[in-house]
Amino acid sequence: MTAPRPFVLTPGEPAGIGPDLCLLLAREAQPQILVAIASCSLLAERASQLGLTIELREVGPHGWPSQPAPANCLYVWDTPLDAPVIAGQLDARNGHYVLETLTRAGNGCLDGSFAGMITAPVHKGVINEAGIPFSGHTEFLAELTRTEQVVMMLATHGLRVALVTTHLPLKDVAAAITAERLERVTRILHHDLVSKFGITQPRILVCGLNPHAGEGGHLGREEIEIIEPVLTRLRDEGLDLIGPLPADTLFTPKNLEFCDAVLAMYHDQGLPVLKYKGFGAAVNVTLGLPIVRTSVDHGTALDLAGSGKIDTGSLRVALETAYQMVGSQS
Amino acid sequence: MTAPRPFVLTPGEPAGIGPDLCLLLAREAQPQILVAIASCSLLAERASQLGLTIELREVGPHGWPSQPAPANCLYVWDTPLDAPVIAGQLDARNGHYVLETLTRAGNGCLDGSFAGMITAPVHKGVINEAGIPFSGHTEFLAELTRTEQVVMMLATHGLRVALVTTHLPLKDVAAAITAERLERVTRILHHDLVSKFGITQPRILVCGLNPHAGEGGHLGREEIEIIEPVLTRLRDEGLDLIGPLPADTLFTPKNLEFCDAVLAMYHDQGLPVLKYKGFGAAVNVTLGLPIVRTSVDHGTALDLAGSGKIDTGSLRVALETAYQMVGSQS
Repeated sequence: MTAPRPFVLTPGEPAGIGPDLCLLLAREAQPQILVAIASCSLLAERASQLGLTIELREVGPHGWPSQPAPANCLYVWDTPLDAPVIAGQLDARNGHYVLETLTRAGNGCLDGSFAGMITAPVHKGVINEAGIPFSGHTEFLAELTRTEQVVMMLATHGLRVALVTTHLPLKDVAAAITAERLERVTRILHHDLVSKFGITQPRILVCGLNPHAGEGGHLGREEIEIIEPVLTRLRDEGLDLIGPLPADTLFTPKNLEFCDAVLAMYHDQGLPVLKYKGFGAAVNVTLGLPIVRTSVDHGTALDLAGSGKIDTGSLRVALETAYQMVGSQS
Repeated sequence: MTAPRPFVLTPGEPAGIGPDLCLLLAREAQPQILVAIASCSLLAERASQLGLTIELREVGPHGWPSQPAPANCLYVWDTPLDAPVIAGQLDARNGHYVLETLTRAGNGCLDGSFAGMITAPVHKGVINEAGIPFSGHTEFLAELTRTEQVVMMLATHGLRVALVTTHLPLKDVAAAITAERLERVTRILHHDLVSKFGITQPRILVCGLNPHAGEGGHLGREEIEIIEPVLTRLRDEGLDLIGPLPADTLFTPKNLEFCDAVLAMYHDQGLPVLKYKGFGAAVNVTLGLPIVRTSVDHGTALDLAGSGKIDTGSLRVALETAYQMVGSQS
């Protein structure tokens, strides 16, 4: 039997609440081996600011831990900052630091050193200010792992919502719903529900693009011309796809009980109900990657960094989800 | 003291569940005077099919009742069918009948005979088949009452969601969000929350159009160019408007506790979460009309007509909401 591999946690933006989340979490004994990829001095300072006594135990490629950390201990792969950090104050000089933590995590997942990675929020703006083109964790990891198409999925207890399009202006959404994209995204969703979540025959409910799923063509024709043909083709291959369904009547208890995921056509069609249902306990999962990656679903909350007044709920769900995904794979 | 005015209920499509809903409701004593505008023979036949013994008491302009109906009694303003009805089978010959019930209800509200109207679902397709241009209750009543702009609002316990645009293909939504329309809709929403719901200083949360409310212009510029200027102008007049906010993080318990309505930019941005939260107990309210009109939020459910296996939850909330609105006005 091989030793269990560590999971890695990237606290992300050093001036945000990511370091706080890691430290608050470390008050309890961990169920899995978890290594934070961050600056040790940053974590020591933030712990002091929060009044926490957490032992920061340095680990690294010279030797990963073989046991989960006990209470009040955090394994850290030390990654040096480029400038000192004041909680709540962005500093573009640390943009490269943030990317280095992500690169270490991603490469370690790729080469099999790590079982999976869990990310706390980064601040896109300050990384761009540092002169680094960066449009988000997901895109960064897609490039690092040479993945052509990734799929964003949010999950909470009893509901998973994946998106065909993500961060697009609303006016550009309809044109982006092509048969090719819809087919690729649906295949990835199906594939990862099987391979990463251990669901033998996943059932997916697919939203229409238009109100009332187009109402037979009266409110838009994308359902007839694009969505239905793709679903028919994929059903012929054995995928269990229901839809296109009107988004406003899809999220009933009965529907959700008998499906494994909902595929929404765009961001604000699927995520308001997911985040309402999973308030404070939602997790972002990137599908399509050759690695396991989950993320909290909130931002850097700069104004709360160092305050201790934060909720670790989303991080806990992100960790649990990553653990489950890796467990389902084996 | 003047006698209380009746509320009127239109069962809508005769082959659908509207007649069933009226009859199931009539098993209980009513808190207000409620008159169904429908064919007596249709209701008698459907009652027989459902195994219900309901006294159908004919009323009309010659004399409205002065007391609410007791249990197992339904006041009916008899309105003749043009063709016999079989539950579940649409018949275009009754298209004119459906419109006659709506015309009677709307005109009676306008001339003050009725306190308000509550509508059960109609079937747009079969009315159009009858050669009558008809795009929905709301548009029909807007025309009947010569109202230029109406606003669709759905409500359930603890949440009201009004829409800037309603039944438009998604590709046309962005262009329809003009400053003029947004301003008119916001004014109507504010006005009716005050005048029809008795809220002295309503607080309205306004969604952005784009994901993350445009993220400072990175994901669309309508927030900066259209929405923010309109909100600023209306705030200067004293309206309490918060936003534009990202739709996916707007629907938190804390936000909803401190607001009276959410204004969504389009159908599938606001209604999935409302219908999820208010499952089976949501109501559709038309704002901007000179009359009180509420409606169930479901369809004709042709396959369930005559079965008795239906839920009167939405109709009950539609009635309660109409009663409350009229109570708040006086």
